[in-house]
Amino acid sequence: MIEVGPNSYGKSAIRLVKVVRGATPHQVRDLTIAIALEGDFAASYRDGDNSAVIATDTMKNTCYALAGEHLTGSIEAFAIVLGRHFLEAGSEVELARISIEEHAWRPIGDAPDAFSRDASETRTANVSVTRELGPSIEAGVADLALMKTTRSAFAGFPRDRFTTLAETDDRVMATKVTASWGYAPGAQLDFDASFVAVRSTFLEAFADHHSESVQHSIWVIGKAILDRHTDVDHVSMSLPNLHHWTVDLSPFGIENDREVYVSTTEPHGLIEATIRRSDG
Amino acid sequence: MIEVGPNSYGKSAIRLVKVVRGATPHQVRDLTIAIALEGDFAASYRDGDNSAVIATDTMKNTCYALAGEHLTGSIEAFAIVLGRHFLEAGSEVELARISIEEHAWRPIGDAPDAFSRDASETRTANVSVTRELGPSIEAGVADLALMKTTRSAFAGFPRDRFTTLAETDDRVMATKVTASWGYAPGAQLDFDASFVAVRSTFLEAFADHHSESVQHSIWVIGKAILDRHTDVDHVSMSLPNLHHWTVDLSPFGIENDREVYVSTTEPHGLIEATIRRSDG
Amino acid sequence: MIEVGPNSYGKSAIRLVKVVRGATPHQVRDLTIAIALEGDFAASYRDGDNSAVIATDTMKNTCYALAGEHLTGSIEAFAIVLGRHFLEAGSEVELARISIEEHAWRPIGDAPDAFSRDASETRTANVSVTRELGPSIEAGVADLALMKTTRSAFAGFPRDRFTTLAETDDRVMATKVTASWGYAPGAQLDFDASFVAVRSTFLEAFADHHSESVQHSIWVIGKAILDRHTDVDHVSMSLPNLHHWTVDLSPFGIENDREVYVSTTEPHGLIEATIRRSDG
Amino acid sequence: MIEVGPNSYGKSAIRLVKVVRGATPHQVRDLTIAIALEGDFAASYRDGDNSAVIATDTMKNTCYALAGEHLTGSIEAFAIVLGRHFLEAGSEVELARISIEEHAWRPIGDAPDAFSRDASETRTANVSVTRELGPSIEAGVADLALMKTTRSAFAGFPRDRFTTLAETDDRVMATKVTASWGYAPGAQLDFDASFVAVRSTFLEAFADHHSESVQHSIWVIGKAILDRHTDVDHVSMSLPNLHHWTVDLSPFGIENDREVYVSTTEPHGLIEATIRRSDG
Repeated sequence: MIEVGPNSYGKSAIRLVKVVRGATPHQVRDLTIAIALEGDFAASYRDGDNSAVIATDTMKNTCYALAGEHLTGSIEAFAIVLGRHFLEAGSEVELARISIEEHAWRPIGDAPDAFSRDASETRTANVSVTRELGPSIEAGVADLALMKTTRSAFAGFPRDRFTTLAETDDRVMATKVTASWGYAPGAQLDFDASFVAVRSTFLEAFADHHSESVQHSIWVIGKAILDRHTDVDHVSMSLPNLHHWTVDLSPFGIENDREVYVSTTEPHGLIEATIRRSDG
Repeated sequence: MIEVGPNSYGKSAIRLVKVVRGATPHQVRDLTIAIALEGDFAASYRDGDNSAVIATDTMKNTCYALAGEHLTGSIEAFAIVLGRHFLEAGSEVELARISIEEHAWRPIGDAPDAFSRDASETRTANVSVTRELGPSIEAGVADLALMKTTRSAFAGFPRDRFTTLAETDDRVMATKVTASWGYAPGAQLDFDASFVAVRSTFLEAFADHHSESVQHSIWVIGKAILDRHTDVDHVSMSLPNLHHWTVDLSPFGIENDREVYVSTTEPHGLIEATIRRSDG
Repeated sequence: MIEVGPNSYGKSAIRLVKVVRGATPHQVRDLTIAIALEGDFAASYRDGDNSAVIATDTMKNTCYALAGEHLTGSIEAFAIVLGRHFLEAGSEVELARISIEEHAWRPIGDAPDAFSRDASETRTANVSVTRELGPSIEAGVADLALMKTTRSAFAGFPRDRFTTLAETDDRVMATKVTASWGYAPGAQLDFDASFVAVRSTFLEAFADHHSESVQHSIWVIGKAILDRHTDVDHVSMSLPNLHHWTVDLSPFGIENDREVYVSTTEPHGLIEATIRRSDG
Repeated sequence: MIEVGPNSYGKSAIRLVKVVRGATPHQVRDLTIAIALEGDFAASYRDGDNSAVIATDTMKNTCYALAGEHLTGSIEAFAIVLGRHFLEAGSEVELARISIEEHAWRPIGDAPDAFSRDASETRTANVSVTRELGPSIEAGVADLALMKTTRSAFAGFPRDRFTTLAETDDRVMATKVTASWGYAPGAQLDFDASFVAVRSTFLEAFADHHSESVQHSIWVIGKAILDRHTDVDHVSMSLPNLHHWTVDLSPFGIENDREVYVSTTEPHGLIEATIRRSDG
């Protein structure tokens, strides 16, 4: 027998910009939205029966149609509205996943209507809505490049016949952060305030600690967030180790004491972990 | 209490080219390798203790060092060698995941030593190795753009107040395939021959069927693979629906009967499913 | 005094797909078009006077509107039609530059209506049309990755105090070709046949020669094209040198005689030149 | 006769990071450098004679070797040092073009050694050095996304049978700026101060004006720069018009008065012009 296993469908890369004109300066909301539905859709695969298949074009229309009334606060709140809408749109829908990226635009000087894009990071929200439980909410950041110019080491690792890396107690550590954190079920949150607070702890912990490895940094940052933000349940990070190698300038009679580096992206380390509260 | 949850670490984007010079023409093997280890690594996070952390730089060296002797057949076979190596490299390693992409180079004419890159698709292998079980092996393709110019419909879907999409019994369907299939545990396989055979069934099924939706196409293709290839356990696909919209030329007094389309990528549908054997 | 200097404006990234259904199999024409107009447009800058500014939205519409009737042969021919249209569309237009990339789709097996994208190269045409002269026509290829696994050297270069590169008489040479060639004014050409012929000479010359450097390869290929194709006036190439470095496996007691390479893209050499007929 | 026409060669994508540790906080200089040499290199093409060909690997080494001593101020100053070095490195070199992109890193809070990348724009310098003249210096920015939410119109353009665009006196205008400006020969400049000043004028003029078109905006901005910065000779801009289309929500009974937009990149307008001082 052959069957349909895990499946989802939806619309990705919905680009929506809302200009809020009531205030001075205007406000620009610039979102990229992805919607995915899970549920009892096996017939659409097996039988080509589309009677339960909300068209992904309709999903797109829905985002634009609801943005005027409902995109008035955080992306988490808008995602919850969208998720509930799609859950109600068809009885076959069991779970609606809404992912929103927000791209920041900052006013230029005092101008009421001119903006420049702050491309330094992307704020993210991943919300899952089901009929039984409250929404599951993950907030996060992506594309945030960070660097430590000292207080970063990597030593004490095992050596085998293929190991050539020297131990170091002072290297440059650089990464491009993808991180998300889940809020405890039932928490009553101001999502914008929580985002600002957790992000601030993230950066502070990154800046303050002495790193023994990327793994260790993930722990330190994750623990700091969980220590200070009781509404946060877990923190997940995916951190590439974007190696900066000290250039050997000795052939040219030049000393290079942690000054000149070659920045590389291929290959890169990749460290992924979740730090969470345990029952213990 | 705060603890380390699920975690993995490794090296990504290892770019390795091997030139096999013994034959005419030469053979070019062009791989991008990613390695991720899972196991008892909590101390590296919590305590900054690197005594179990095989350096990702060592992982990179290992790929190059083993390529001469062991990259002689399929990427699946090389991935198994690498996975077993890392499992044996440290007692804390419980699972080694090796992902390899192979980029094809074809000889130019009869030249023994000149090649052009066939960028039309990427062959993939994802292999997981543990101590207890045999390796879990997924073969696949990525970046393979396909199109049906007729025999593709989308109708019978529900309409609500945000639905504007017209039903159609003849649309262009275009996608960029990411697909993988898992081989049954213990199967004795010629991985290269199996890849060629499954890929061929994939394309044949894509070309032959009348599609009622992308979901339906996934089923038809997945079922064809499972019907014909008894060693395949399941097939997973992630198919964007890269919409081609018929351009409305009526303002210009020009009829456009399924001839001129605008090709788009934002937004796109995204349909993901696994088709598998069931016990029933 | 301040004035408007050189300027152009137009529409880029127009994505147009035409399905030709009359034949079996169907034919898929997949183009990306860019249009740029030059001429007497200073008032649009200086005075915000748009009375001569053909809207770039109109340019887009025009491409779709004319594709049915006029995209029946080569992209060069379609570009000429478009260029002449825009020259006639406004008296201020002095030059219309039309750039078209064609993305190839190949039928799958014997299917009349199923296609896979051949992403290995992009065919290009750059056509400039003015009132005074005949169209200037450049045909070309882009994104074509090529490799020589032997018969490629680099030696005899000057050494200064910053030179560490060893001379080699046998290296891997890899590049991603962007090339274009201009046809002699007034030539009566079958653009499709000429493209196939020149491209074939390009690959043949690449495959056949012994390369002393990327510069030398450009000369050999360019000269071969000019020697064999009398309608070609000049050949321009932009060739990155995508270095493949032999991995030093000696720390592991492994010999690596031109077998295992690390493929890199950052940094890369970049060699650009035009080979042309001279009056001499 | 066949000859070598215009040509250049060099190294691109040299990734260099310098950490200046003397001060608190540290300073991170993150550059991507491209070097291209022009001159009497025909023999390297025609004869495969590399005796004048400074290896591009040597160029890379030179950047790293000179960074310690010479990358102490602006990227323009470092580019001049590099350009002069390569001009002196070989008598065949007639012109050295040095292009540097600087990626900004900002300290995190008060930390002396932690930084986040400001990805909102890239500072650029393009310097050409010859034996006869002083260096030609272009400073600029790239990747700077800007938006006006009102005070942007597009009307009064000609209408032909392919024109469907409505005139508008209030649209969203968005672009991603690539701009550069040339300093007058012989000007004695503080390149960092000049960059800051010109960039500031750019943003101020963008924010302040009422735009009749992208062309008009280029004029207004370019003229403002030339008016206020006497050392600037000309300003060149390449501005895509990244269309934001008002979504038609009337099918859903929802009014959309310049509030909800779909942001697009394909196709886009592209307006390129130089505003310069004239002799008149």
